[in-house]
Amino acid sequence: MRIRLDVAYDGSAFHGWAAQPGLRTVEGELSTALATVLRVPEVTLTCAGRTDAGVHARGQVVHTDLAELPYELTQLARRANGVVGADLQVHRVVAAPDGFDARFSARWRRYAYRVADRPDLVDPLRRGHVLAWSRPLDEGLMNAAALALLGEHDFASFCKQREGATTIRTLLDLLWVREDDGLLVARVRADAFCHSMVRSLVGCLLAIGDGRRDVDWAAAVLAQARRESTVGVAPAHGLTLEEVGYPPDAELGARVQVTRARRG
Amino acid sequence: MRIRLDVAYDGSAFHGWAAQPGLRTVEGELSTALATVLRVPEVTLTCAGRTDAGVHARGQVVHTDLAELPYELTQLARRANGVVGADLQVHRVVAAPDGFDARFSARWRRYAYRVADRPDLVDPLRRGHVLAWSRPLDEGLMNAAALALLGEHDFASFCKQREGATTIRTLLDLLWVREDDGLLVARVRADAFCHSMVRSLVGCLLAIGDGRRDVDWAAAVLAQARRESTVGVAPAHGLTLEEVGYPPDAELGARVQVTRARRG
Repeated sequence: MRIRLDVAYDGSAFHGWAAQPGLRTVEGELSTALATVLRVPEVTLTCAGRTDAGVHARGQVVHTDLAELPYELTQLARRANGVVGADLQVHRVVAAPDGFDARFSARWRRYAYRVADRPDLVDPLRRGHVLAWSRPLDEGLMNAAALALLGEHDFASFCKQREGATTIRTLLDLLWVREDDGLLVARVRADAFCHSMVRSLVGCLLAIGDGRRDVDWAAAVLAQARRESTVGVAPAHGLTLEEVGYPPDAELGARVQVTRARRG
Repeated sequence: MRIRLDVAYDGSAFHGWAAQPGLRTVEGELSTALATVLRVPEVTLTCAGRTDAGVHARGQVVHTDLAELPYELTQLARRANGVVGADLQVHRVVAAPDGFDARFSARWRRYAYRVADRPDLVDPLRRGHVLAWSRPLDEGLMNAAALALLGEHDFASFCKQREGATTIRTLLDLLWVREDDGLLVARVRADAFCHSMVRSLVGCLLAIGDGRRDVDWAAAVLAQARRESTVGVAPAHGLTLEEVGYPPDAELGARVQVTRARRG
């Protein structure tokens, strides 16, 4: 049987999602915990968004396949949470619907990037997941610049290139909102993101928002369609994977086919 | 000249506000930082709320008296923030109005106590300032019980007694609100609080909210007017000093007289 796990983590003390020998990673910690509480030698995990070192998640989605379950599925989250560190929390475990794949069924991923751009907005309680920026940011300029990035493009300028992989993505939302408490939060949603893409998009817009670059610079960078060394990659700790969207259960299998074909 | 500082801190790594030899405290860290950037041997601080070890603040108010300032007052916050740890932040420094005293001019202190009472509400990013509670809480019962505590009472049942000091206080607000994200937050406001009072009030209401005690238990505890060992003190890390209220500038001096007379 396939199960779906919804998990959240504080990325500060993890070397990202992907397991690496000798390093503490979310995949490593979670798969070890599940193997322990399921009493099996090994558990293989697939996630919706392979977050980098220091990036957080509130809505990460994971699947794994189990031969058998030694107890009720409803007990699994509590048991796993008793084994993992306090910076990792399994919110929910359910039987996955037919055809579900945490990675390939996903229709979109939504990230948030949080910035405190005035000294009085810097909240020590949230310093682990909010970037402190020393210059005031104009969200109107950042949103104007972001318009040129929406839709399907080759985002090579904003991606760490991987040999043989496409950098064409569909950016569905990129909107900065000044929240009631003064924090500036970017809502960034795409069908998928290539490596370091969200942080490069944010880095580009921060330079426009604080006046170092003109509003049309984002479009110019995009048009180059190759990695642009003048675009800064925003720090990891401001970024959180908030939500992953899936189609209705009946369309899950079809979605997997579409995704696999596109990424090939 | 007297200056007013508005400060915020993550209390996790501080042994409370009050300076103690050999321990890292907010008062110790802030006074040392100010002495450094003001180039004076010593700075004496007075705060509005002497928070316990592990308690946080977003709206702590502090005053100190300076003989002279080596530069513009507007530079002081930035300079001090360059010296203190990332878990302490000076939000604002201004010249205090005539008659201002951070402690004795205050009309009220407002605290928030935050609880996640379902596993899916436990957010690793906020685990440092939100209490995870393993049983669901009924905020209707907690608010019904809290009504009996409002107003002026002898809160001896909820205080660590200090020799010769009154435990009569006026509780202005005690309301639990379920926020949009599901977190349960108590808003607790009083003219002043005696030692451990907010956490004892919260501990009492948690026992009512999760069904271990009846709704009229809070009133019964209050009526005893002596320290009740059956009331648990809620953990420090869920508590944050959010705001301190002061009267209009013209009434500051008069307020100091009233407060000093009451506490005597």
